[in-house]
Amino acid sequence: MAGSAGAGAAPRTIDLNADLGESFGRWTLGDDAAMVDLVTSANVACGFHAGDPLTLLGTVERAAASGVRVGAQVSYRDLAGFGRRFVDASVDELRADVIYQLGALDGVCRAAGTRVTYVKPHGALYNTVVHHAAHAEAVVSAVLAYGPELAILGLPGSELLRQATAAGIRCHTEAFADRAYNADGTLVSRREPGAVLDDPAVVAERVVRLVTHGVLAAVDGTELEVDPDSVCIHGDSPGAVAMARQVRAGLEEAGVDIEAFT
Amino acid sequence: MAGSAGAGAAPRTIDLNADLGESFGRWTLGDDAAMVDLVTSANVACGFHAGDPLTLLGTVERAAASGVRVGAQVSYRDLAGFGRRFVDASVDELRADVIYQLGALDGVCRAAGTRVTYVKPHGALYNTVVHHAAHAEAVVSAVLAYGPELAILGLPGSELLRQATAAGIRCHTEAFADRAYNADGTLVSRREPGAVLDDPAVVAERVVRLVTHGVLAAVDGTELEVDPDSVCIHGDSPGAVAMARQVRAGLEEAGVDIEAFT
Amino acid sequence: MAGSAGAGAAPRTIDLNADLGESFGRWTLGDDAAMVDLVTSANVACGFHAGDPLTLLGTVERAAASGVRVGAQVSYRDLAGFGRRFVDASVDELRADVIYQLGALDGVCRAAGTRVTYVKPHGALYNTVVHHAAHAEAVVSAVLAYGPELAILGLPGSELLRQATAAGIRCHTEAFADRAYNADGTLVSRREPGAVLDDPAVVAERVVRLVTHGVLAAVDGTELEVDPDSVCIHGDSPGAVAMARQVRAGLEEAGVDIEAFT
Amino acid sequence: MAGSAGAGAAPRTIDLNADLGESFGRWTLGDDAAMVDLVTSANVACGFHAGDPLTLLGTVERAAASGVRVGAQVSYRDLAGFGRRFVDASVDELRADVIYQLGALDGVCRAAGTRVTYVKPHGALYNTVVHHAAHAEAVVSAVLAYGPELAILGLPGSELLRQATAAGIRCHTEAFADRAYNADGTLVSRREPGAVLDDPAVVAERVVRLVTHGVLAAVDGTELEVDPDSVCIHGDSPGAVAMARQVRAGLEEAGVDIEAFT
Repeated sequence: MAGSAGAGAAPRTIDLNADLGESFGRWTLGDDAAMVDLVTSANVACGFHAGDPLTLLGTVERAAASGVRVGAQVSYRDLAGFGRRFVDASVDELRADVIYQLGALDGVCRAAGTRVTYVKPHGALYNTVVHHAAHAEAVVSAVLAYGPELAILGLPGSELLRQATAAGIRCHTEAFADRAYNADGTLVSRREPGAVLDDPAVVAERVVRLVTHGVLAAVDGTELEVDPDSVCIHGDSPGAVAMARQVRAGLEEAGVDIEAFT
Repeated sequence: MAGSAGAGAAPRTIDLNADLGESFGRWTLGDDAAMVDLVTSANVACGFHAGDPLTLLGTVERAAASGVRVGAQVSYRDLAGFGRRFVDASVDELRADVIYQLGALDGVCRAAGTRVTYVKPHGALYNTVVHHAAHAEAVVSAVLAYGPELAILGLPGSELLRQATAAGIRCHTEAFADRAYNADGTLVSRREPGAVLDDPAVVAERVVRLVTHGVLAAVDGTELEVDPDSVCIHGDSPGAVAMARQVRAGLEEAGVDIEAFT
Repeated sequence: MAGSAGAGAAPRTIDLNADLGESFGRWTLGDDAAMVDLVTSANVACGFHAGDPLTLLGTVERAAASGVRVGAQVSYRDLAGFGRRFVDASVDELRADVIYQLGALDGVCRAAGTRVTYVKPHGALYNTVVHHAAHAEAVVSAVLAYGPELAILGLPGSELLRQATAAGIRCHTEAFADRAYNADGTLVSRREPGAVLDDPAVVAERVVRLVTHGVLAAVDGTELEVDPDSVCIHGDSPGAVAMARQVRAGLEEAGVDIEAFT
Repeated sequence: MAGSAGAGAAPRTIDLNADLGESFGRWTLGDDAAMVDLVTSANVACGFHAGDPLTLLGTVERAAASGVRVGAQVSYRDLAGFGRRFVDASVDELRADVIYQLGALDGVCRAAGTRVTYVKPHGALYNTVVHHAAHAEAVVSAVLAYGPELAILGLPGSELLRQATAAGIRCHTEAFADRAYNADGTLVSRREPGAVLDDPAVVAERVVRLVTHGVLAAVDGTELEVDPDSVCIHGDSPGAVAMARQVRAGLEEAGVDIEAFT
């Protein structure tokens, strides 16, 4: 499921992923043009939490031109809430919603000469499928129905990755560059102070250490052992591009190869 | 572009198409389960004027089970207006909207073991691309980008079919079973009395005559020469199923083969 | 908070309420024209789970013409789910959503020469505020901000009515004509068999007994003591109108006055 | 219909209006907090082209706190197109849509201790009602039904103001600070180069001249005589706040009183 290499082994390889395509009509979010050159995997919105079709087309065209792989950032149907609110959909509804989103984004990719190669749930759906068996099942079932060759990118230890692995789907794990962790390996809730780190130097150093040494300090100082296939960089905050540049530069200086997971 | 056979040649072949998948969430429209067994081509909504993903999945599963071909009924983004209102979208917006819809429905089809094989614009978009060059171009360009192997089903003489033919897309023409025609071959506007015929016997006789003799009486009595590849039967009116049954029975009695166009 | 009168006192008075205005664009749900003459209170959708503005205007015009009081059936923002899915909105979001809906429907009422006089949450929001303190608070706070003179119609014993009463809002309670009850007075979940009663004679007799004797049999035979101000009749099922007629006729025969609560 | 005062009369009075409340959920547009202190009239979105309820509530609370009047910026129902696309709605649909939006925003205002006092159509609807009699009628009819005491703010010479004046509605006219004009007094289309002016010094000087001397230079040099009640400043472009500050400062230096029209 996860990466490889012990600390010390060189060169280590890591994937960098970020959320793109999250504008909608008149509203712009993030700087897709800059971010697409800093990552190896683009989690592109599918229209249910963000991403009108014209935005999506532009985003995947840029990704294709930069050789960046496209993943489908599937979500609950909740434009007003940006997919950040749990919606108590039935398994059948959610499964169909995920299939529809996969097809839509893959269609846009096809028109741009690329394809969706992996799936990463967005926002509330991402957090829900860490533990919610029925919604995890809906996502897994949708991926099996639409394209069992697609990979899933998710949180290590999550119910989603457990079910997906059991179903024979390729799974990849990620760590978050700018998020604080609890001692049990879960993320500190965004509602708590300090949940999001905003100093690029701190974040870059943290990412280098987690990739090269496989450790990450939790908020209480506990050293968590981690071995992710990808590191998620947020693209929609002010300073996101600068932070992504610093993370990337730090990794390159440390001799890490930045490459898409396979 | 169009069909074949002179009047008198036997047996004549015709395709029957109807709009399906036009429910949305709690709201049901039409009787998909009954209609799918009466037609050879199902124009399935794509979510922009109707069709939530779970409805669409059920509809295309039924179509697949009945061996009925699926077409994408692409529309302006207008759920509140059921796609019946012209929306002055830019060419780029409309092109991307059509690509997104094609991908979404095709993805749902893929999950159901079938595929989209043709495109038929819906409602206001259907009527607009009869004459609106820019919107016709958007549809043609979207089909070329998404899947140049797809056919387009439209109104004979329309700008859409003219452009699509020029672009090398396979085109098929249709006549309307239950609509009154003007002497110039256009449809009588729904805003005028008598625009929609509702007597199943009249409609069935009309369809048999147009298929077997290639003529259709306009409202002023003019005999229009027609040679469509398909006849459209509406599925969402009360009595739609009964009318479709009578049309089908009439054609079978007249020795017409009811088969999907190819 | 609740009604009056002991069993035996005559004539007993009861309000009948039903959900109206739940069509959307092309999609029709229920028979508003028939139902509006059978009830004394119309819970009218506000556009977030159902009810496009033109539908709403027609519904409140009918209610005004029939002298039927209009209540605002406020909902989570979830058109695709018809408001039947819990949405984990923040208190501030939900409060603003309720204010917006109250204003919108009241505006439509104003144009029709009537006004919103009470609030009844719809679907998942109705069920959630039975126990969810934060969402109940959002509704109460919205009513206080928009119009503290409005009444709230809800489930006896609910958190919503508890908070609303504490805030000085007039509250009214209801029982459900066609729903099975658990022995603790809660409704049997719609996911369980037998949750919804569909025999008009059974339902009518049940309503007469609950209004005239204040008792209602739970699924295990327990006799629940009830004393609602209103009885809710569902308007969107096949046979809804026939059932409503039979309930009304049963009450009239039993000498019950059918009047809006005040 | 319009203002007063000949050139030379001092002090001249002018209203400044800007579009506010145009964020939606996660997406922010413009700087409402800064703009609200620079204008005397806030055209606030109503949810159909922009403006989720929580955004709207915050905007009108700020307007109320700053003593700025609130107008309803009613729109076609087109979130994806930001209300900038003509939608061929029927008169009845559009009338009901406008009533709904007026009620919704007025309800939000009521919760914030203020009220809607005028109406200004947004985007494509604004441009359409300059000449489209049926859509102008829909707006006028909605205002009469919802609140005939409301004023309408629009383009001088427009069909909307003509019909509204004939119906007895108070009308106010506006000029655009940062838009180029044709020699016939209409706006240069946004699709043409130079349609939008972006030099704050140029714009400020232009506004001062139009307010104090009643003249405005068209693109071909023609001097247009104008006498608007209000000047519209755009709030959603980069540099919008700086431009608004310079316009305001220029007017104050010229001895103009900046006050809401009445």
